[in-house]
Amino acid sequence: MAPLLEAANTFGTPLYVYNLDMVQKRLSILSDLFGNRFGISYAIKANPNPTLLAALQAGLSTFDASSFAEVIAAIDAGMPAKQVTFSGPAKREAEIKGAIVAGVGELVVESLTEAKRASSIAKERGVNQNILVRINPLKLPRKFGASMGATASQFGIDEEDLARDLPIIRDYPNLNLIGFHIYSGTNCLVPEAIAENFAIFADIFRAAQEITGVKPKRLVFGSGFGIPYLPGEDALDHAALPALINPIIDDLLDGEAFNETKCNLELGRWLVGPAGWLLTRVISEKHSRGVEVRTCDAGFNAHLAACGMMGSVIRRNWDFENLSNAKGQTGRYMLTGPLCTSIDRLAMDIELPKVSIADVLSIASSGAYGYSASPRGFISHPEPREVVIENGQLRDATPPLARIAAELVL
Amino acid sequence: MAPLLEAANTFGTPLYVYNLDMVQKRLSILSDLFGNRFGISYAIKANPNPTLLAALQAGLSTFDASSFAEVIAAIDAGMPAKQVTFSGPAKREAEIKGAIVAGVGELVVESLTEAKRASSIAKERGVNQNILVRINPLKLPRKFGASMGATASQFGIDEEDLARDLPIIRDYPNLNLIGFHIYSGTNCLVPEAIAENFAIFADIFRAAQEITGVKPKRLVFGSGFGIPYLPGEDALDHAALPALINPIIDDLLDGEAFNETKCNLELGRWLVGPAGWLLTRVISEKHSRGVEVRTCDAGFNAHLAACGMMGSVIRRNWDFENLSNAKGQTGRYMLTGPLCTSIDRLAMDIELPKVSIADVLSIASSGAYGYSASPRGFISHPEPREVVIENGQLRDATPPLARIAAELVL
Repeated sequence: MAPLLEAANTFGTPLYVYNLDMVQKRLSILSDLFGNRFGISYAIKANPNPTLLAALQAGLSTFDASSFAEVIAAIDAGMPAKQVTFSGPAKREAEIKGAIVAGVGELVVESLTEAKRASSIAKERGVNQNILVRINPLKLPRKFGASMGATASQFGIDEEDLARDLPIIRDYPNLNLIGFHIYSGTNCLVPEAIAENFAIFADIFRAAQEITGVKPKRLVFGSGFGIPYLPGEDALDHAALPALINPIIDDLLDGEAFNETKCNLELGRWLVGPAGWLLTRVISEKHSRGVEVRTCDAGFNAHLAACGMMGSVIRRNWDFENLSNAKGQTGRYMLTGPLCTSIDRLAMDIELPKVSIADVLSIASSGAYGYSASPRGFISHPEPREVVIENGQLRDATPPLARIAAELVL
Repeated sequence: MAPLLEAANTFGTPLYVYNLDMVQKRLSILSDLFGNRFGISYAIKANPNPTLLAALQAGLSTFDASSFAEVIAAIDAGMPAKQVTFSGPAKREAEIKGAIVAGVGELVVESLTEAKRASSIAKERGVNQNILVRINPLKLPRKFGASMGATASQFGIDEEDLARDLPIIRDYPNLNLIGFHIYSGTNCLVPEAIAENFAIFADIFRAAQEITGVKPKRLVFGSGFGIPYLPGEDALDHAALPALINPIIDDLLDGEAFNETKCNLELGRWLVGPAGWLLTRVISEKHSRGVEVRTCDAGFNAHLAACGMMGSVIRRNWDFENLSNAKGQTGRYMLTGPLCTSIDRLAMDIELPKVSIADVLSIASSGAYGYSASPRGFISHPEPREVVIENGQLRDATPPLARIAAELVL
């Protein structure tokens, strides 16, 4: 934890720290686990920090962009446009045009509406655009938390409509259907459930192949690999995955219709989430009605998810440490942020080594859906900066505009 | 609704529209209701749009700023620094220094910690700083929703600690205690509960006066005036307030100790909330498993609160209209935003006149805690612009940096 405290003292707080050495380690774990069965597709939405993207780029098969600005961010990070996929349920005409002009490798088509729109734009530009069709499965294994499948959804063609819709999409002019994409569930910590889901994907991919007669060049498996957020939660036992998943992939690719197929494993959270921390400093303290209140310089403006405001049904304390007093006698605290609203709570009744003014606290599991997913402008407090640890060294990774904005505020 | 549709067509979507004529009307309602009993203090955190602040400024007693950047925004809007109060539970040393140098009228002190910090900064600068002490009441009437009082809190000195703490704060060098501040509950729609709360405030102010011997020059009454968010909810019957509230104020000010007192009514939401709309356009449509899904260009990135992600326990649909088809036959829809996550939902099973691609939908009650409280950078979709209606005319009110950023994205 020493580099974290050093980072806070050097760069100030609030501060996001991303350990790129750890991210690279996790990337190499994936190739150890799955060999060449999967290329890795990183979902930029998890964390679009430019320094992070540039560091990841060489080790990936593709970047998955969920907005046109993310397409540009991918290319800016050094990724050839052909290795960028563009997904998302609300691609505007200008965005599709932009992506086609930029030369993205694959447009992920989410609906008939969108296929038609993409076809007419590609035709207008006189190009054939490679597409993947996203599919929304009927089944999602239990033990998945938040889900994007099985119910009505804005994402992809519903599995039960494939026979009707896939031929229509395949036959749209100027679209070249080269494969399929499924991302139906996120943040799962149970290897068996993930494997069960991959078996569902494989069956659907076979059905889609038969319906269309297309020999897929690309299949995207949305990983659903989860990470622990709460103290005491076990990490996903990734060592258990190959025995469960590899046979499913080998069996699928054994078919003649799949002998040109390259599979991608799409993930974001698992790769970068555990490699990030938000650091915040205690600004004020108060004993209020039997509760020790510590008010910090980061609240839900800096980390919406850690404050339980990003899809959590029940608010639970994340994994905090007191970096300034790691081993002292403990007390119980209410940790709040700096915002003038009673909903700005980082942790309730949390046990930590004595927390005093100026102490630096860390919030783990903050590498994904932290900085970029938070309402940083709310009440105009100074925005967090971002730094990376690379080869053990700290380096500023705050995008220039954000850095200037941060310094303008104070 | 015609100017709203015109605004969407002229400035594009997503778009926040603030009707300044309506805000001015609401401001004049307050002076009709309470005469000169109250000056009005606008809490910038509700909506810090610079054009809005500039328009409001002349009709206010003070701006209440909850961060140093909001102090600057107040001054930039043309308000004399002496008419700015600076509140917030986590004022850093640099912020207090900044506010003292800027010459804010009143620093709202939230804790002993902060009083001590402010005293030493004021001493260092060789000035006497006027302060108000914020008080956290023991009681909050039922019928208040979200509350900032009655429980353990980061805000203010607890009522039961006043006798111990107020003399300490009063006697800190270079601080000039001129009054008190209470904001214990927000968004109440019941006049009797608001009046009951004001009676509690009055009792506490009397007690604080007796403890300190200070003849208050300023008392701030946090209004708690609520607005309806859900279809069918009744607005606060403000016409019922004078009969309930004015006698409480008159009685308080009748005492000799209060004959130099000016009262301020602090509010944000009630003034600007009903005068704002978020406009969003339908980008895609899909029939999924019996549900008509419409995917819009605004999601929780553009309006966190409307998506039920800002402190709501139960997610309910806000008040939507289809501006492009106001009176057609209705259907039931799931409205989603553009984000690649299943939690991005604007409305579930909502009944609206037929909703088609390119239709513009409005979300009412969006003038407060909308634009500035939302994670606009998440997945890097184009940020909403902001426009105002003034004297019936539309005018761009997007701050220049945000406008440039919006155009850079696409």
